[in-house]
Amino acid sequence: MPRYKMTVEYDGTPYVGWQRQDNGPSAQGALEAAVLSLTGEVVAVRGAGRTDSGVHAKGQVTHVDLSRDWQPYKLRNALNAHLAQAGQAVSVLEVECVPDEFDARFSALKRHYLYRIIARPSRLALEANRAWWVSKPLDHEAMHEAAQMLVGKHDFTTFRSVHCQAISPVRTLDRLDVTRHGDLIEIRASAQSFLHNQIRSFAGTLKMAGEGKMTPDDVRNALEARDRKACGPVAPPEGLYFMQVDYPTDGNWRPYSNAESKAD
Amino acid sequence: MPRYKMTVEYDGTPYVGWQRQDNGPSAQGALEAAVLSLTGEVVAVRGAGRTDSGVHAKGQVTHVDLSRDWQPYKLRNALNAHLAQAGQAVSVLEVECVPDEFDARFSALKRHYLYRIIARPSRLALEANRAWWVSKPLDHEAMHEAAQMLVGKHDFTTFRSVHCQAISPVRTLDRLDVTRHGDLIEIRASAQSFLHNQIRSFAGTLKMAGEGKMTPDDVRNALEARDRKACGPVAPPEGLYFMQVDYPTDGNWRPYSNAESKAD
Repeated sequence: MPRYKMTVEYDGTPYVGWQRQDNGPSAQGALEAAVLSLTGEVVAVRGAGRTDSGVHAKGQVTHVDLSRDWQPYKLRNALNAHLAQAGQAVSVLEVECVPDEFDARFSALKRHYLYRIIARPSRLALEANRAWWVSKPLDHEAMHEAAQMLVGKHDFTTFRSVHCQAISPVRTLDRLDVTRHGDLIEIRASAQSFLHNQIRSFAGTLKMAGEGKMTPDDVRNALEARDRKACGPVAPPEGLYFMQVDYPTDGNWRPYSNAESKAD
Repeated sequence: MPRYKMTVEYDGTPYVGWQRQDNGPSAQGALEAAVLSLTGEVVAVRGAGRTDSGVHAKGQVTHVDLSRDWQPYKLRNALNAHLAQAGQAVSVLEVECVPDEFDARFSALKRHYLYRIIARPSRLALEANRAWWVSKPLDHEAMHEAAQMLVGKHDFTTFRSVHCQAISPVRTLDRLDVTRHGDLIEIRASAQSFLHNQIRSFAGTLKMAGEGKMTPDDVRNALEARDRKACGPVAPPEGLYFMQVDYPTDGNWRPYSNAESKAD
């Protein structure tokens, strides 16, 4: 059966998360329903990473096996027509034919996330559910400086949910940059894989650094404590965006043993 | 009674428009209800410009008279608390005390609007109701060139709604710039005042220029026809944002006789 890589965008607000669950609609379920309505096939659409309820995606990557050959743009357009028909907040941005060895989750080399904070006195209207509203100004340079304490290979026990199912709490964080554009503060995080709630735990802790409540040393001490209680409050889901997944460009799709996918 | 200038943001999606109407909720009505619930006063909140249903504001300017003196930041925070409580998609960004001569509509020197188009093959998920989705690529340079035919003082009969109530169709358009950032095309329009549906009429016509269906000469001919039928299809409301209003900085708030406010 031909395998298709599908890059998808979704508004996480109406969903219980990426993953199909019994307690409400999911982005995965929306895509699977669109495939069913288009092809009559009951399929599993596999994602590169899970996202929690309210977390958005601008570049979630998925794969699915279908019985027939599709021209990629026709599959994209047909799935989008079915998603529109069903009133779903999911859009298929791109479809590619890939070899059977490609796995959206296990072939991933690097995942990129964005966390958006809007720091201003007034509540959000246009950006409601699209960013974390913080009513006080934040020092983004202090946040960036503190963030650098977290870059590298560490035991991130402090920064993962107690529900995280990953066997090891050790991850290599390649990038954690904080920039500001007016009242918008953007935190960009990249790694091969993340732990559950890791980026929202970073964002909550870095907000404290931006308020002057934690120094870079405090953040390093929190990391070294390897203790969930040393983490700042976990930031809310609506600021988090799953942006992009990088895959090998040499066609070598071997599974990566360290690939973990839960990242919110 | 002290007069307050209030700069407000709103998501136009749930509203029949800025103006209070019998057929559904309005942004003006939401603000007036927040004032009533805060102060017990039935007031009229006056806006610098009307916006149609679905049109957004990042910088609508309003004024209101209240019986008591408020510290501006306290009035802003209290109104936002009431708007949040009521689940309204309106936020008060800024409050200032202004003299009685200030009138949000009649004192305005210039109004600034943004029209956002996202040109990409896939439907919008995160930007649904926040931009006009156009599925084919647009030549933004051709759009900008065509737009320059419209800048200046003209009879804009071609580009106003047949329902426009302005006495004169003559307006002076100060700016109509088209720029592109990836798949986002931004049209920025500035003038002292606009006619009803003028910017959405521009956007619909410029889209045709971006598709190669109208040359700059065609756009000039459409303008000179002074005929509504020469206009391209009116662009949908969800791409339009009321961004900013400029007022005199010299404290001279005299009403401007040419001030017209209906701009979508």
